[in-house]
Amino acid sequence: MTKPDLVILNARELVTLEGNSYKPKTKEELKNIGIIKDGAVVVKDEKIVAVGKTDEIINKVNITPKTRVIDAKDKTVMPGFVDPHTHIVFGESRERELGLRINGREYLEILEAGGGILGTVESTKNKPEIELYESAKKRLDTFLKEGVTTVESKSGYGLETETELKQLRVSKKLGRTHQVDVVNTFLGAHAIPKDYKSYPDAFVDLVVDEMLPQVVEEGLAEFCDIFCEKGVFSVEQSRRVLTKAKKAGLLPKIHADEINPLGGAELAADVKAVSADHLGKASDQGIKRMAEAGVVGVLLPGTLFFLMNDEYARARKMIEEGVPTALSTDRNPGSSPTESMSFIISLACLKMKMLPSEAISAATINAAHAINKADKIGSIERGKQADLVIFDMPNHEYLPYHYGINHVETVIKKGTVVV
Amino acid sequence: MTKPDLVILNARELVTLEGNSYKPKTKEELKNIGIIKDGAVVVKDEKIVAVGKTDEIINKVNITPKTRVIDAKDKTVMPGFVDPHTHIVFGESRERELGLRINGREYLEILEAGGGILGTVESTKNKPEIELYESAKKRLDTFLKEGVTTVESKSGYGLETETELKQLRVSKKLGRTHQVDVVNTFLGAHAIPKDYKSYPDAFVDLVVDEMLPQVVEEGLAEFCDIFCEKGVFSVEQSRRVLTKAKKAGLLPKIHADEINPLGGAELAADVKAVSADHLGKASDQGIKRMAEAGVVGVLLPGTLFFLMNDEYARARKMIEEGVPTALSTDRNPGSSPTESMSFIISLACLKMKMLPSEAISAATINAAHAINKADKIGSIERGKQADLVIFDMPNHEYLPYHYGINHVETVIKKGTVVV
Ligand SMILES: [Zn+2]
Ligand SMILES: [Zn+2]
Repeated sequence: MTKPDLVILNARELVTLEGNSYKPKTKEELKNIGIIKDGAVVVKDEKIVAVGKTDEIINKVNITPKTRVIDAKDKTVMPGFVDPHTHIVFGESRERELGLRINGREYLEILEAGGGILGTVESTKNKPEIELYESAKKRLDTFLKEGVTTVESKSGYGLETETELKQLRVSKKLGRTHQVDVVNTFLGAHAIPKDYKSYPDAFVDLVVDEMLPQVVEEGLAEFCDIFCEKGVFSVEQSRRVLTKAKKAGLLPKIHADEINPLGGAELAADVKAVSADHLGKASDQGIKRMAEAGVVGVLLPGTLFFLMNDEYARARKMIEEGVPTALSTDRNPGSSPTESMSFIISLACLKMKMLPSEAISAATINAAHAINKADKIGSIERGKQADLVIFDMPNHEYLPYHYGINHVETVIKKGTVVV
Repeated sequence: MTKPDLVILNARELVTLEGNSYKPKTKEELKNIGIIKDGAVVVKDEKIVAVGKTDEIINKVNITPKTRVIDAKDKTVMPGFVDPHTHIVFGESRERELGLRINGREYLEILEAGGGILGTVESTKNKPEIELYESAKKRLDTFLKEGVTTVESKSGYGLETETELKQLRVSKKLGRTHQVDVVNTFLGAHAIPKDYKSYPDAFVDLVVDEMLPQVVEEGLAEFCDIFCEKGVFSVEQSRRVLTKAKKAGLLPKIHADEINPLGGAELAADVKAVSADHLGKASDQGIKRMAEAGVVGVLLPGTLFFLMNDEYARARKMIEEGVPTALSTDRNPGSSPTESMSFIISLACLKMKMLPSEAISAATINAAHAINKADKIGSIERGKQADLVIFDMPNHEYLPYHYGINHVETVIKKGTVVV
């Protein structure tokens, strides 16, 4: 008989998301979120050791005075959210640009006034590592309070080697020191710096010949990403970067077809990317190819919401065609300053017509697949890491319904209560 | 020299909203939110006794060991939000309808399946007072955590005398017992009950001849409201109810022109309503008339967001014409289940192109005017009730920018720290 460290009992809905650790959920599977009514979870040594109905579990475990017992009566329990796409290590926030945008200023005007992504590049370059660490740590604190227990974190505000490495080192240190698990992605090719405006290929050379080898040598990232978009990096440049990265041992990801149907989704299928993200304008063909290749589509509705753009990604089409869909905040200072996966789930339902169950699959197990961690996290199953969230709500449908509010009551990370 | 109960010092931005206690803010005034950099507030006997720069204030007050001193370094301090339009006393939440709506079910289908407003009427009728009290209390707890210190609360889920009175009694008890101040509005004419479908005027008779006198006799409300809309109550029926209510001593409010330009805004001007609310389809003429009559326009963008409707009220037109605009959550179980005034402010900026300063005026001093309480609340000025919120953010623009997150750190109600 197990002597557990922690037991959660009596959950009105225990949402397990079980059964898809080896292949992300697609189509009808997205709706099957494995609800156990009156559910219980048993945790020992940072892992989940039993899951089931409370009355069955209670007879199997040996609760000792050292066991922490949590009564989740009237509550809903889910796996910790996984956010598979963020840019959390950066210099300054950009709230001043909001008023400019409301007054109708175009992005280019803001860029020329020293704002936009190049403003973030400047402030990120100028901040010492310790300040970048402290400000990103605060963002992770907020993620944790919002029930997010694993976060992917990208570089990309350097656009030169030193700052890219600095960002990734900060991010790696956060992963070692913070309760939230952090997974690193190298995004040296996030934008074309001013000096390379007329020589984009020379910048691609810099990314693959100088930055990439150092990132790999220092072991600073698991993934390599690129912003494939009109005016940024072409499909061919993106193919070159991702192919090189793959050879160097990094798994490919791609910012694809956000604003124009450039063929990023198709490229993602070609290079067998782990995920293709954004996809606001992904073509029918691109969607089909992603489905065939099993590329996870990471949708970022918060970005379109914040950019006052109402053309959301075609989630229903993607689900119908068999693309495994995931959700993310896209946390960044310019186009999506939020850590609320709950709000992203509300947006997914209201704006992309995903069902609450589908959106929850997308924010947990499929998001874990989008960062290649579904063997460890993303569901409540025996053997998985005990990352659990207790929500003060009667059922999972309540999450997108009671919008704009953080319903997280308790967060358990690797078996320890941290919120 | 004052011996204060509480002093807040060093606020990076102290947003006072001063100067408009006698007339709501219009046009350019909405942008003047009275920012004091490095600001301080002094509180004694539940009231604000001094406001100014920290270094000036510090020399005037006599801080004793009994004084609570709060250092608001790097923080923003604002008056507590005022929510001037809610329906918080009701039976059951309606999260199950969200999936139906996503699947394309029409409102009428949901109504026939026992959902919609008539479902809420049924569950509100069936719940004993104590259960209505407990569930509404929880909503007020959430409001308070979100920095809302005064809430208007409407009846309207009775549609028969006993339940209307029950709702108002619960609401009044909440006002006496909860830290959040509650202001009651009688909304007997919220919908036409099934039995009166063919005899709407007979229901209006019931509202004015039976319900209204009892509400007034028991002193259960300060305001009377009506849902003036196609298929609900006509302009003439609304005029009749509001005129009678006014004679009986209740101040008029109106749900106006939400879905159709019926002339509710014009009626609001005719009867000198304190506010006209929704206004999604208010006519040019109606807007002009409201501005002339000084009727506060209460905008409820959360409702349109949640109903997946992208035709928001014309806030810019209203501001240009001189309508004093306010904001509200419209908290209710069917069309706007949120207590987050912060999120409503984000929506106002992103969807109605209000500037952060304008939206903050609308959520504080103008919202106080919308419930006739601007002499007591809605700004940080000498003599006003000490309802204050400390936000963990560097400036007021950060509030709509860092969206979907509750930045409230400390809430002070009548001089006491309550969150
Ligand atoms: Zn991104
Ligand atoms: Zn209403």
